[in-house]
Amino acid sequence: MAKKDLSLSRVYGLIEPGPVVLLTTSLDGTPDIMAMSWTMMMEFEPPLIGCVVSGRNHSFEALDKTGECVINIPTMEIADAIVGCGNTSGQSVDKFTRFGLTPQKASMVEAPLIGECFASLECQVVDDEWVPRYNLFVLEVLKAWLDPDLPDQPTLHHRGFGQFMIAGETVKLESKMR
Amino acid sequence: MAKKDLSLSRVYGLIEPGPVVLLTTSLDGTPDIMAMSWTMMMEFEPPLIGCVVSGRNHSFEALDKTGECVINIPTMEIADAIVGCGNTSGQSVDKFTRFGLTPQKASMVEAPLIGECFASLECQVVDDEWVPRYNLFVLEVLKAWLDPDLPDQPTLHHRGFGQFMIAGETVKLESKMR
Repeated sequence: MAKKDLSLSRVYGLIEPGPVVLLTTSLDGTPDIMAMSWTMMMEFEPPLIGCVVSGRNHSFEALDKTGECVINIPTMEIADAIVGCGNTSGQSVDKFTRFGLTPQKASMVEAPLIGECFASLECQVVDDEWVPRYNLFVLEVLKAWLDPDLPDQPTLHHRGFGQFMIAGETVKLESKMR
Repeated sequence: MAKKDLSLSRVYGLIEPGPVVLLTTSLDGTPDIMAMSWTMMMEFEPPLIGCVVSGRNHSFEALDKTGECVINIPTMEIADAIVGCGNTSGQSVDKFTRFGLTPQKASMVEAPLIGECFASLECQVVDDEWVPRYNLFVLEVLKAWLDPDLPDQPTLHHRGFGQFMIAGETVKLESKMR
């Protein structure tokens, strides 16, 4: 998708709804992808995102060593690739090739954007003090990308064991909350 | 709703999809409610949930002082109450009365469950070390309640400024992920 610059002040609106995301990393020139749901906004601006990445995931080492990643937001359209990324390990599989995903050069980090995702957030680890305690990384979003044509496919929201809620329709309510 | 015991091992499936939740607290006998989206699973079992509650929220003091709360998950059916809770402050409004919500006695904490929510998680703060740094509370779920009749209304997922995605339909994909 043709993604364009997104203001950092608008990043939280992508993470708050709680979609499954694809986290990309790059270690010694080898990119990897993992599917994950344990993410949370921690600050509006600069946007901070908390994420818990288990040491059992191949991506843990790359995230921990390089201190960089990209959070990509996919839609239902690539559901097979999302599930495929979750079912395989980067230790033995080149997930970009296997699942037909396109790596795109990021501007601030080594980890690639995923072309087929409608939004991508280039991130830097800014606090790793709670990695030993909870595997919790605090990420600052350095640069954000969004396809200005809103995706016509819903996002996926993980309920566990292969069940996903799909969230598409948006309603407007009289909220005063940012 | 007639909620029943839910196994703690299944709690993450309620939080991972990222719904707006209603956090209830009780300070000196006065209950309060806040609407929030900054939550994240941090451990499967015992279930740990991270949540960021700004000091600008009236509920912050109750959560901080008592170390207890209930995370309630509402559906679209009470959208007006959700938005109402977000638009008002417990400092001047009894939100249960104002928005027609029913407090129900919890079993492990002082904070009440919300009768109209299909799931409620009784929580205790187990780590407040990062409250000064990020307003991040680490909660352990002590007891979980779920209406065994799945709600026929979708959950709401906040995009900011009154926009909510609605997530209802669930699909089953061939995922091996827990």
